Amino acid sequence: MKKLTGLILLSGSAPSTANIRYLSGFTAPDPFIFLQTKNKKYLLVSAMEKGRGEKQCTPDTKVLTAGDLGLKGKKDGKRVSQIKALMEKAGIRKLQVDADFPTGLYFELEKAGIPVSVYRKPVCPERKVKNKGEIARIRESQQAAVAAMKAAIGLIASAEIDPETSALLIGGGKLTSETVRQLIHKTLIEYNCAGFETIVAGGDQGTDPHERGSGPLFAGQSIILDIFPRSEKSGYWGDITRTVCRGKAPADLKKLYNAVKAAQSAALQTVQPGICADEVHNAAKAVFAERGFETKVENGAHVGFIHGTGHGVGLDIHEGPRVSVSGEILEPGNVITVEPGLYYPGLGGVRIEDTIVVTETGWRYLAPCEKKFELL
Amino acid sequence: MKKLTGLILLSGSAPSTANIRYLSGFTAPDPFIFLQTKNKKYLLVSAMEKGRGEKQCTPDTKVLTAGDLGLKGKKDGKRVSQIKALMEKAGIRKLQVDADFPTGLYFELEKAGIPVSVYRKPVCPERKVKNKGEIARIRESQQAAVAAMKAAIGLIASAEIDPETSALLIGGGKLTSETVRQLIHKTLIEYNCAGFETIVAGGDQGTDPHERGSGPLFAGQSIILDIFPRSEKSGYWGDITRTVCRGKAPADLKKLYNAVKAAQSAALQTVQPGICADEVHNAAKAVFAERGFETKVENGAHVGFIHGTGHGVGLDIHEGPRVSVSGEILEPGNVITVEPGLYYPGLGGVRIEDTIVVTETGWRYLAPCEKKFELL
Repeated sequence: MKKLTGLILLSGSAPSTANIRYLSGFTAPDPFIFLQTKNKKYLLVSAMEKGRGEKQCTPDTKVLTAGDLGLKGKKDGKRVSQIKALMEKAGIRKLQVDADFPTGLYFELEKAGIPVSVYRKPVCPERKVKNKGEIARIRESQQAAVAAMKAAIGLIASAEIDPETSALLIGGGKLTSETVRQLIHKTLIEYNCAGFETIVAGGDQGTDPHERGSGPLFAGQSIILDIFPRSEKSGYWGDITRTVCRGKAPADLKKLYNAVKAAQSAALQTVQPGICADEVHNAAKAVFAERGFETKVENGAHVGFIHGTGHGVGLDIHEGPRVSVSGEILEPGNVITVEPGLYYPGLGGVRIEDTIVVTETGWRYLAPCEKKFELL
Repeated sequence: MKKLTGLILLSGSAPSTANIRYLSGFTAPDPFIFLQTKNKKYLLVSAMEKGRGEKQCTPDTKVLTAGDLGLKGKKDGKRVSQIKALMEKAGIRKLQVDADFPTGLYFELEKAGIPVSVYRKPVCPERKVKNKGEIARIRESQQAAVAAMKAAIGLIASAEIDPETSALLIGGGKLTSETVRQLIHKTLIEYNCAGFETIVAGGDQGTDPHERGSGPLFAGQSIILDIFPRSEKSGYWGDITRTVCRGKAPADLKKLYNAVKAAQSAALQTVQPGICADEVHNAAKAVFAERGFETKVENGAHVGFIHGTGHGVGLDIHEGPRVSVSGEILEPGNVITVEPGLYYPGLGGVRIEDTIVVTETGWRYLAPCEKKFELL
């Protein structure tokens, strides 16, 4: 008799939690266990989450508590006992776990005599191709991002310039990264989205693509605004970056901006179903090479175009397909960012990013947003 | 010759990411690897995060990139090669991983011939006992939570009551959970904190302790407000819950509130160094038993006191010591919540929660906040 196998996922890591949400419709802050067999899905939640689970889950998901499985909820080996009981309920004899499954629990299962192995393939490769409902949900988050971007740029544009220090001033006080970030986050809340680690990085701070930015902002410097909200309701993300300069930009910085704008445009022009995502990345690289913007190590710092051109966006902020050297072929329904950037300490950082959907014939923006560098 | 062992942690799961932050001072949205040997700590980050890593890390942490280790960053087996190179750099021959380490990578390491095993003990048991700096950081988040609570309660208190439907009205429109939640999140932003999954749950919605709440709020019902902000800067959390009722509460609901208030008070009174956390939980349970509030399954729903009394708060919102049936002994420097609650569909839910620090002689609130049920 063939041993029936089920795939078990544990909430906790971002990819596993997103996969469970994709497969079952359920998410929660506290731990829960998901089991998928050939014909059925099971969700094991705490007693106090059962009602909500039943409301949120897809019809093919059975929501259970430890009590439903006849368990009294003893402390020791609790998760192992729960998984054992869940396997009995589902009539399976063998388990597979995803690559993110915690090693500690894996060996506890093995010790308890459960045949278990690692499922080596992506759990939900279909997540890369979004359906209409998902595209609508990402568009909502992207619209929130655009609204927050407009608010932030409006604030920077309205700042006075201190004639002595070039510091940006609002209401007599210095305009800081923190103030702009607060406005962005408050605007996102109006759209029922949450902002995390939003980047408002001026001058040399912007030359580290992950620096969030802090302190006063100045005229004549590039200010990178990278906003990636998550919908509180749907869990889907949006992602946008603009780079602006209050007042006139130095000629060198303007060249940098124009190169990134041209690179993004060239990269976008390559996007269509059937092409390799690497081509999108290479199109951006080619523009930088042509204009003499080198990527290298200088005084111990990595400068130039030091990241990939983009990534998929969905229930994770970074998911497939990757737009760099992944070799992945673009398909209609892929939602990706296209976000080339250049970073040179002493000069500044520039990044321009849009989130787009690949269509049958090409691509379209999920939410359009002006690209303008100098705020005069 | 003895084989030197190092403990390796991978960012990704909340506990591992928090442990790395605790040990090294570093955190980032993208993946990074942490290795601790007997004498030294190593952090392997992407090239673009090296600068920030060096700024944020404790002096005993060496920040490295793949380039520093002589790796060119090939795609296949990248993390395994990085870990191998890191082991060479650190002069260790054997690895241990924490229980949350991803199973997929564990077996990749094993396949690459690296002696690896699971570290079974808690990685940072010392996290349970907070030092002065940590307590100050949690207090900041708790003060943000209290400010947001006051704003939310002020809004509910100011609502008009529709004489026909008892719906709460603000500016002529219905006051909803969503509106109150937005105000809470905006207030938290003013304090440089972020709110996630904040609960504003009225009436029967509040009888599911994890229901976030949605739709119109009404007079004469209990409204649970559970706010747990995380500082954007420090990463430390705060946690507070109040339950309020706009207008006069039905006598039964008032009894419920008074029982929870008495239970919290009784639980708080037991807190002192050297006692078992179970005693705190039992003190709350005893009050409910005495007043005839049963915990049971009724019409398929779990009702009564259906969760533990509290949990530790720090770089994770839920961490040690647990205040339920953990058997853990309280120590000065523990920061815990005390949050008994009662939940009866048809009547409502009530929870009252404060975050406190255990002192040498007892305990104190991290940020005091009034407890008042009826907003008349």
